[in-house]
Order: sequence, then C-alpha cells, then structure tokens
Amino acid sequence: MVGIALDVMGGDYAPQEVLKGAQEALKASKGIFLYLVGTQEALSEFPGHERVSKVVASQWVKMDEAPSEALRRKLDSSIRRAFELVKKGKAQAVVSAGNSGATYACALFTLGRISGVMRPAIATVLPTLKNPAVLIDAGANVDCKPAHLLQFAFMGSLFAERILGIQNPRVGLLSIGEEGGKGNFLVKRAHALLSESPLNYIGNIEGRHIYLGEAEVIVCDGFVGNICLKVSEGVAEAVAEMLKAEVKKDPLAILGFSLARRALKRFRKRTDWREHGGAPLLGVNGVVIIGHGRSDARAIKNAILVAQKFVETGLTERLGKSLHQKSKSLKENQAIQ
Amino acid sequence: MVGIALDVMGGDYAPQEVLKGAQEALKASKGIFLYLVGTQEALSEFPGHERVSKVVASQWVKMDEAPSEALRRKLDSSIRRAFELVKKGKAQAVVSAGNSGATYACALFTLGRISGVMRPAIATVLPTLKNPAVLIDAGANVDCKPAHLLQFAFMGSLFAERILGIQNPRVGLLSIGEEGGKGNFLVKRAHALLSESPLNYIGNIEGRHIYLGEAEVIVCDGFVGNICLKVSEGVAEAVAEMLKAEVKKDPLAILGFSLARRALKRFRKRTDWREHGGAPLLGVNGVVIIGHGRSDARAIKNAILVAQKFVETGLTERLGKSLHQKSKSLKENQAIQ
Repeated sequence: MVGIALDVMGGDYAPQEVLKGAQEALKASKGIFLYLVGTQEALSEFPGHERVSKVVASQWVKMDEAPSEALRRKLDSSIRRAFELVKKGKAQAVVSAGNSGATYACALFTLGRISGVMRPAIATVLPTLKNPAVLIDAGANVDCKPAHLLQFAFMGSLFAERILGIQNPRVGLLSIGEEGGKGNFLVKRAHALLSESPLNYIGNIEGRHIYLGEAEVIVCDGFVGNICLKVSEGVAEAVAEMLKAEVKKDPLAILGFSLARRALKRFRKRTDWREHGGAPLLGVNGVVIIGHGRSDARAIKNAILVAQKFVETGLTERLGKSLHQKSKSLKENQAIQ
Repeated sequence: MVGIALDVMGGDYAPQEVLKGAQEALKASKGIFLYLVGTQEALSEFPGHERVSKVVASQWVKMDEAPSEALRRKLDSSIRRAFELVKKGKAQAVVSAGNSGATYACALFTLGRISGVMRPAIATVLPTLKNPAVLIDAGANVDCKPAHLLQFAFMGSLFAERILGIQNPRVGLLSIGEEGGKGNFLVKRAHALLSESPLNYIGNIEGRHIYLGEAEVIVCDGFVGNICLKVSEGVAEAVAEMLKAEVKKDPLAILGFSLARRALKRFRKRTDWREHGGAPLLGVNGVVIIGHGRSDARAIKNAILVAQKFVETGLTERLGKSLHQKSKSLKENQAIQ
C-alpha cells in the first residue's frame, strides 16, 4: 500500500475538483492510501473511506502568494502538513496542484535534497509524434548555471529510462540553432559540459523539434522551460478556437466535424495534458508530484496514480545511488560552475 | 517607386523559390523595383523585366555559417552586396531569408544603428485570437540587459502603432507568472524599468496568453523569443500531424474533413506564418526584412510587400525621431544597465 498525502487546498478548482479526483483515484487503484490534507470545512464534504485519513490544517497557501513568506508565516498550511506526513514516514509521496513555488520551497525545507543534487528540478512529460519526452526543468529554477543543466540532464535521463521505459534516451539541449556554437551564454557552456558527459547527448535541439520527438530528454533552465510549456498550451488552445470559429461559419463544415467526432475525441485524448498527470520534482528526498494549477478531477486522479508508480519503482532511491556514482564528474562540474 | 535589394541566395529553398517570389511580388505591386542579388548562374534563370536589375555576386553565406566569419571573409557575398545597394542609396530596403545572424551582422556593419539604439532587434508579427501582436526580440540578441528590453518595448510599440495600426498598444513582458515579482533576474529588473516608462505597460504576460491576444507588444530577450516562435511552429505542426493520423483511421472522419475543407483552408490561411511575410530588424539605419529560413515563393512575396510598406510609412525615420525624444530616459537607463 502506497501512502499519498494530497493537498486538498491546492489548485484553481480546489477543493471540489481535488476531492473528486481523490475519489476517482481510490476507485482506479486499490494500492493507495490517501491522506487528505485541508481545512475542516473542505474535508467535511468527503465521505468516509477505509483507505482515507483526513488531516486537518487551518491554513492554505494561495496561488499567487510569495513562497518564502508562505513558508515562514503559515506554519499550519495544508501543503506544509502534507510534507510533514512524508517526513514522519506516514506517507511516501506528496501531490499538490497548488502554488508550485511554495511546494518547491516546502519540499526543500522539509525533505531536503538528495546528496549531491545542487538544484531539484521539475520534469514534465510531453506528448510527441514518437516517444513521450521529458522536459526538465519546467519551472523550479529560473536562473541557472551550466552545471545545473548538466544535473537536470542526468536526472531527466534516469526518469526517462525508469518511468517512461526508454532505453538509452537521447538528451537534447534546448537552444536556438542545432549547431553547438549557437545559443546564449548559459547554453553554450552547458553544451560543453554535456558533450563530455557519459549521457546519450545529441546536441542542441530547436523548439520546433521537441514535438517531432527528436529527443526523449529536453534540458533547459526553468524560465525557458516554463515558457515553452505555457506557449505550447496557448498555441494548442488558440488553434482549437480559430478552427472552431471557421467551422461555425460553414454548415457543411459543421456536418463534417460531427461525422469526425470520434476521431476528434481520440485526438483530444492524445494531446490533453490532463492525461499525463502531474510533474515530479526530481532531486528531493522523497516523491513530490506537482499538478497543473488548472487541474480538474481527472488531472488530480492521474497525478495520484503517477505518485504511486513513482514510489513503487523506487526512483528516488535510484536517483540517489546513480548521482552518487557520478559524484566524481559532478564535483568536477561544481568546480567550474 | 521603392527599390528593394533581394538576396536571391538566402533561404532553404533558394534560389528557385526566392526568384518565384520575386516574380509574384512584381505582379502584386507596381510600386516596387527589385535588385536581384545572386550568382550569375542563379540569376540567369530569371527573365528580363523593366522593374528588375540583376546584381552579380560571386559568393553567398550558407545557413549554418558563422556570421562573423562570413562577414570577414566573403567580401563578395550576395547579402553584403544587397546591403551595399542600400548604403549607396540605390535601394531602400534589404530582404533576405538567408542566415539571419549574417544578415544582422551585415546590417550593423553596413548601415549602422539608429542614434541612441543599443541593440537592434527582430520584430515578428504573430496571429492571435484578437489583434495581431508583435514579439520583439525574436532572435537577434541572445544575452540581454534590462535596458535592452526597455528599448525593444519602445521599438515594438512604435511598430505596432505605425505598421499594424494599433492605437496605444498594450506592452507585456514575457515571463512565467503574471505578478511583477515573478521571473528570472533579467525580467524582474526589466519589469521595474517598464513600470516607470511612458509605455502602455500591462505587466508580465504568460506564454499561454500570447495567442489569446492579451497584449499587442510582447517583449523578451532573443533567446526566449526565438524558442517561443519555434515551439509555436512545432506545436502547430505536431497537432496537425496527430489530427491527420486520427482522421485517417476512420472513414467517417475522412468524409467529414472533406466536407469541411473550405473551412479548413480558411483556417490554414489564418494561421500560416507565410501570410505574414518577413520580420523587420528594428533599430538599424535602413529597412531590413528577415524572412523565415523555410520561406517559399509566397513567403518571399509577402516579405517584399512588407518591405515596401515599411519604406512607404517611413518607420525607420520615425523610430529615430521617437527614440531621440526619449533619449533622456534612455540615457538614464543606460546608466543602470
């Protein structure tokens, strides 16, 4: 049985959608035990369940609150209480769709980093025309040094191997040209480090090639990574809106699209981020899954199932061991960061 | 009559598509005179025309060549000869879909910057659900300082006003959260400068909101801007591929899509970057339009027409005057860059 602490107060549609997601997850998997952490009022709506324990917290962190402030002042926040359950050994994972900065800060403060890791990073799985790909860092570290990017590449590779099941994943460095000499100051130096690493590094990868599936691990700083994800969402949404507007003008097109509705449904499922659940925070001492702020019940359910899989594969322990083995090269890199 | 120097050797499909584009532009507009700059062999294919002059260059810059090397060694390259035509006063604009780094370097070297401009920047027009928006910088400057971003905002605003016809355009700073405190080191400091500027600055804008049309000017450094554009292209292409794959599996959907083909065609036209022509390099002493590397004849034609409009509206002169008026605040910013 995997114990998972769920931050009931986190996300744009909390607590209703989060609680619904919890119920769906309990139905979908018999192997989880949920600690639902939230205010008395929020938890009162949830019916009793043999694999659920309610943990009351009097506070919660808002989506736009400054993480450091929240960590310092809100000692009884739901996200903090969730992490304490892991710290005490009751739960083995935290899932939250709330303020991701606060989740990151709380994870660092409560669980700490795996020995040797400089900066934990968020790994997001993207659908592509070939294999799924992992983009790391998706937003935890906005200002990075070259050695941080090298570590992201190590962690992302292990994640792609163990969780996505991809042998010897190709690692690409997100940049603005394919040649190694192209990019900004950070990327040029990271390219030099990656070229000398034992990873399956294929060089720079351009934004256009991410979704063609030309690499299974895409490395970038958290500022660029987060913009990359948000722009992708925006394009997909805008394309859908523009298409809908053109179809609406034309009765034949309306009929045509209704004939194609089964294909459209399959397509939507394939491209919907909610199918892929949350994004793990790699490099902390424990399993932390960060959900999308706009998570609905289905996204929460999938994030919980990802957390279960993560605990069962023991990736955190493996990350620790693997990074330890590579400690020599990491120390060398720290020296030149 | 607007004289335009066209780099016939520039672009992935040069010279054939570039020459075809030239022919289409000559048909579409009676107000242009084209200087076609390329090798003897490339130009021999083009029939004589009363509004065309052929200018022979013995060399050209390849797409992946290092710009500085190309500038130094290839003294008789087509891009260099094109700029010399503007320098000599024969042509008033340069259009090239070739190596954009070399075009940038050549523009700086031959034409120089408008007085007061620290860094010329590429302005790209994006379709959105509302007004079109201009993203600046789209790739000229990969490492920027806060004061550079402030200048990009000034140039982008003037461009949106004069070329896109948008009154008092809203300026957004591309970042990873809407609150002013969010972003990397560069963006946080640029936010402070923009907040004090006379521009219609609406604060940070997230990647997801670009295509919803929440700002008409989107400011970022050239590394982030270029990735943003390439990711957008990639998402649109991948979405189209995935949709096609799902439709192909289902005879009803194939029928449906054939009924909707007129709506699909209008949709494609609306989202196709080739419709928007090239992107101007703002801040140099002259009109320079940088075409997409994958430009076909239609894209080249539109880039030429954009160049004509640019010359006719006298934007370069206006940019010079406008930035001169703002020189006081710019000097202050230079002091704190």
